[in-house]
Amino acid sequence: MFSANSWDTFHPKPCIKSEPPGSGRVFSGIQPTGVPHLGNYLGALENWVSLQKQYPSVLYSIVDLHSITQPQDPTQLKSNILDMAASLLACGIDPEKAILFQQSQVSEHAELSWILGCLTSMPRLRHLPQWKMKSKLKNEGSVGLYTYPVLQAADILLYKSTHVPVGEDQVQHLELAQDLARIFNNRYGDLFPEPRLTRKVKSLRDPSAKMSKSDPQTMATVTITDSPDDIALKIRRAVTDFTSEVTFDPETRPGVSNLVTIHAAVAMISVQEAVSQARGLDTGAYKKLVSEAVIQRLTPIREEIERLRADRAHLEQVLAQGTRRARELAAPVLAEVRQRVGFC
Amino acid sequence: MFSANSWDTFHPKPCIKSEPPGSGRVFSGIQPTGVPHLGNYLGALENWVSLQKQYPSVLYSIVDLHSITQPQDPTQLKSNILDMAASLLACGIDPEKAILFQQSQVSEHAELSWILGCLTSMPRLRHLPQWKMKSKLKNEGSVGLYTYPVLQAADILLYKSTHVPVGEDQVQHLELAQDLARIFNNRYGDLFPEPRLTRKVKSLRDPSAKMSKSDPQTMATVTITDSPDDIALKIRRAVTDFTSEVTFDPETRPGVSNLVTIHAAVAMISVQEAVSQARGLDTGAYKKLVSEAVIQRLTPIREEIERLRADRAHLEQVLAQGTRRARELAAPVLAEVRQRVGFC
Repeated sequence: MFSANSWDTFHPKPCIKSEPPGSGRVFSGIQPTGVPHLGNYLGALENWVSLQKQYPSVLYSIVDLHSITQPQDPTQLKSNILDMAASLLACGIDPEKAILFQQSQVSEHAELSWILGCLTSMPRLRHLPQWKMKSKLKNEGSVGLYTYPVLQAADILLYKSTHVPVGEDQVQHLELAQDLARIFNNRYGDLFPEPRLTRKVKSLRDPSAKMSKSDPQTMATVTITDSPDDIALKIRRAVTDFTSEVTFDPETRPGVSNLVTIHAAVAMISVQEAVSQARGLDTGAYKKLVSEAVIQRLTPIREEIERLRADRAHLEQVLAQGTRRARELAAPVLAEVRQRVGFC
Repeated sequence: MFSANSWDTFHPKPCIKSEPPGSGRVFSGIQPTGVPHLGNYLGALENWVSLQKQYPSVLYSIVDLHSITQPQDPTQLKSNILDMAASLLACGIDPEKAILFQQSQVSEHAELSWILGCLTSMPRLRHLPQWKMKSKLKNEGSVGLYTYPVLQAADILLYKSTHVPVGEDQVQHLELAQDLARIFNNRYGDLFPEPRLTRKVKSLRDPSAKMSKSDPQTMATVTITDSPDDIALKIRRAVTDFTSEVTFDPETRPGVSNLVTIHAAVAMISVQEAVSQARGLDTGAYKKLVSEAVIQRLTPIREEIERLRADRAHLEQVLAQGTRRARELAAPVLAEVRQRVGFC
């Protein structure tokens, strides 16, 4: 299943820090799919945690307006929003450093989206990934699904964001946000900085290496609240080949290479180091090693999520504070937009 | 030029009142095109004035969010909004009876529009008039133009409106609003009444009579602030045929029939009576009679618009009060929608 629940996706670790610190504003969003899986965590969320240390202003939004572009059960959606908030906090998002908020609670997102939609030509959206991939599954999609990237542009521009961490599958959406910043500025005078992609994280082993196709799927089976037993079971069941030695070769040996990638990522070591730790182990024994590394990494997160879930009032208070702070930034920008457009 | 600046359009008068009084809520919108022309006045606005006497709750919105689906000059737009407010008041909209407000100042319109867009399939909008007629002129339109009818549905449903006066060209848009009320109610439980068309006004002479094609054009040349000299000149220049007698036959004699229609409408008499008043006059002399009738009808309106325009603070205060009252109605409905959808 295609899943773009976070704008960011996984890249083999670790992040090479190269952004000049001390300036800029980061914005990113994640759909409230409930508890993130290992792929979300190793991809987007770890990166989010490190970005909040690098930039003076960071906003992370639980993008529930985006989530309803696909049918949602209301009760599930509501609990997913709180679960996502708990997960983000447990993964290390610090609500004192980052503004963590729920998109639908800041009316300015929908308002700016309407205005930007009036600056977007219909054909411009036809080939964007969100529509192409999701509408095909059902043979037709909703207006919301089609205009999804316009709302995404509004999310970004509403805070005059300068840096946006997005995955490969979202690069074209960021380009739309850049175009809309230019179009607005040309028509109504400079207002929006052109948002840039945050520098891509690269593999230490080979900067051009791409993850094998099987990776996202395997990493999507483990959620960050899985019990140690579940994690062990899921990794034991991961498909590998009949060669017992552990090597890293995503093209010819995607299964075992995937395990190496996960191992390296959760243990925060290089792929080379992971392979060298596997020396002398067959894939069965290596799976056990990888399980232990994953369990070690996720256990404190799982426990923290459990603690936070039990304190719903605290979660709601964190989100309410995030909403207030987001509005404080959004309201004057939208007021300026309204004035430039001629509404007041 | 195609103009759907008001949702309502002209029908040969007079209105046959047949709505049961005392219940229901009316909503309609008009684009801020500046000062309305005679066609707007005789069509939508007279009807709006009479509706505010028939229904206990009436909202009229200057729909500036809709207006930016076509390029607008910001300074012009801003002054057009105030001019439209002045014109509506001068035509008889009573801000104590009707809530008169500017759409963009009530954020709930854009928010509900996003949610309804997620319930609208893309093909559903493809054949609706707004897109078909306006996008052809430019060969491609904006996302805002395409999704225009969804915003219109949001405008209507946001106030749980029961009655919507719309012209022939907007009937399909009202049908979308009805569909979306049903779709929302089915998915999330009953919330929205299905808005109905206010009963069509009919010609006393022939209920099935349609106006000739030339009518809207002629009536669009006279604005309600034209000076008596301008009105006389424009009507003198109206195209008629070479038969000097005045008769009413829109099919074979559109030009002179148009004059009869205008005459009957502004003098608030039947078409038959207008024709009988024209007995013995050639079309030249009849044009003078029609001019006088138009001038007599529009003079107090023009003077009132001039007075109101000079008191900008008053206009802004009226709109601000309308915004407050509209929000009081919109906020709890949107709060309920948000809850049903699962946002809170």
